[in-house]
Amino acid sequence: MTRFDIETAAERIAGHVRETPVAHLDPRAFGAQGLLILKLELLQHTGSFKARGAFSRMLSAEIDDSGVLAASGGNFGLAVAHAARELGHRAEIFVPETSPQVKIDRIRSLGAEVHVVPGYYPDAFAACEERAFDTGAAFLHPYDQPAVVAGQGTLGLELARQVPAIDTVLVAVGGAGLIGGIAAWFAGESRVIGVEPIACPTLHAALEAGAPVDVEVGGVAADALGAARAGAIGFEIAQRFVERVVLVPDDAIVLAQRRLWEECRVLAEPGGAAPLAALLTEAYVPDADERVVLVISGGNTDPASVMS
Amino acid sequence: MTRFDIETAAERIAGHVRETPVAHLDPRAFGAQGLLILKLELLQHTGSFKARGAFSRMLSAEIDDSGVLAASGGNFGLAVAHAARELGHRAEIFVPETSPQVKIDRIRSLGAEVHVVPGYYPDAFAACEERAFDTGAAFLHPYDQPAVVAGQGTLGLELARQVPAIDTVLVAVGGAGLIGGIAAWFAGESRVIGVEPIACPTLHAALEAGAPVDVEVGGVAADALGAARAGAIGFEIAQRFVERVVLVPDDAIVLAQRRLWEECRVLAEPGGAAPLAALLTEAYVPDADERVVLVISGGNTDPASVMS
Repeated sequence: MTRFDIETAAERIAGHVRETPVAHLDPRAFGAQGLLILKLELLQHTGSFKARGAFSRMLSAEIDDSGVLAASGGNFGLAVAHAARELGHRAEIFVPETSPQVKIDRIRSLGAEVHVVPGYYPDAFAACEERAFDTGAAFLHPYDQPAVVAGQGTLGLELARQVPAIDTVLVAVGGAGLIGGIAAWFAGESRVIGVEPIACPTLHAALEAGAPVDVEVGGVAADALGAARAGAIGFEIAQRFVERVVLVPDDAIVLAQRRLWEECRVLAEPGGAAPLAALLTEAYVPDADERVVLVISGGNTDPASVMS
Repeated sequence: MTRFDIETAAERIAGHVRETPVAHLDPRAFGAQGLLILKLELLQHTGSFKARGAFSRMLSAEIDDSGVLAASGGNFGLAVAHAARELGHRAEIFVPETSPQVKIDRIRSLGAEVHVVPGYYPDAFAACEERAFDTGAAFLHPYDQPAVVAGQGTLGLELARQVPAIDTVLVAVGGAGLIGGIAAWFAGESRVIGVEPIACPTLHAALEAGAPVDVEVGGVAADALGAARAGAIGFEIAQRFVERVVLVPDDAIVLAQRRLWEECRVLAEPGGAAPLAALLTEAYVPDADERVVLVISGGNTDPASVMS
């Protein structure tokens, strides 16, 4: 994964995704050291960075009348359904029966055919792969295909153009597609730190083991960050270019959600607030003048779940 | 009110207020013509532009131990309490007993002394003026003092630096402090359009009458936009530099709130969503290539009140 791959993806998806804004906070915002900058990726189409990878993959594949397939009851499912509708493709989304009904309804409202699969995410994934084998439709992996990771990397490219002299980027990690793309862009020029819930330590465990390994996932952010195994592409980039992965407890994630709303009127889902949780818990402590970007991606939550 | 006054205010308040981000939307966002740009002023300290005017006024006044006084059960009260705390001044805020308890609690939590006054806003205002007469504390008017209007005008200055070649700015109007400051900055170089709820037609009525007049106010945005009479400063600027004021019904404001959340994950209060309501109702119809900024100010709402 090179900068050229990411630049190519950016050209491909231009006009289909939003350039999302950044907000520079005052010194000592949230009681943290450093100069904090929010990358407000929750303003992206369908509320998360997943739209970048979905468009990148679809616009670099041959897609016939059988359309596209994906397994996801969450943000990736929303993004694939949206991108397919915009590009005029059929989309079938396989969701585990454990997905919240509100997300299933929302994916359906974007025009996708939704298959509710008994069991958990791996069951939905297997059903989706089988369907791809049967129909020849294009299978979109949520985080472990080159065009997907390059698409997520366009967030890094865009950020580097918006904010000069970034010292550090804090990114929440699920299957490592986003952090892989961002770290491939910065390639060591800015520090990239992963943030995972203690309850979803997927990349942390992979880096300790020296290879992706299966982990138990759960907790408040599992819906977005609960990949059981890191992607091979993201993992390899992370080995080279992610300085480390810090872990945060669920209660700090919930507190970070609340403080983002109270102090900035930004209403993020738990996964979107995780980078701030790393500062609140001092799992990551910036230097006094450090320019730290928090990637706030994921606004697919019920507003009522975040206290006013 | 000149650009020099606004530049001076901007220097005064620098470091105390946030530069709030802008988000460029795709063509035909929200089904509207034109190229829409959101000025996300709800990310300002205390959730609205009122912090600009409050800091501008306090930093240009002599303030002794008796501190500052303001009458407001809403965004101005929050902003004054916040600015006073930051600058180390005492603050007394007079709120009508009709204010929501949650706002009263919030103003108090910012360290201000809150006086709950029987009756409606004019009663709180009169009690506040009387207290200023008795104590010599600095009285801060929510919209009709030069330093306040110049402070609100810094939003225009900032916006002009962030976004080149603005054709049109849509701004919600209460007492005309914000639109006065913005229109004074643009001074006819970009079109400035006011947006008022049909239920709070304060500036619309003043422009028709040729002078500020008392109007009945009510409806979903009255808390933020329900000034009974336009300020003299804002009115005079509006006569020269506001092209017109359009009126929108309450149900369109509520719909605009919901669509801002659904399509951009921006959670604004009714007053903050009013500019979008002007596009949804076609009260204002941009040309195909028109660059239209919507000032989205006001995030002081219960998230649960906006449907997911």
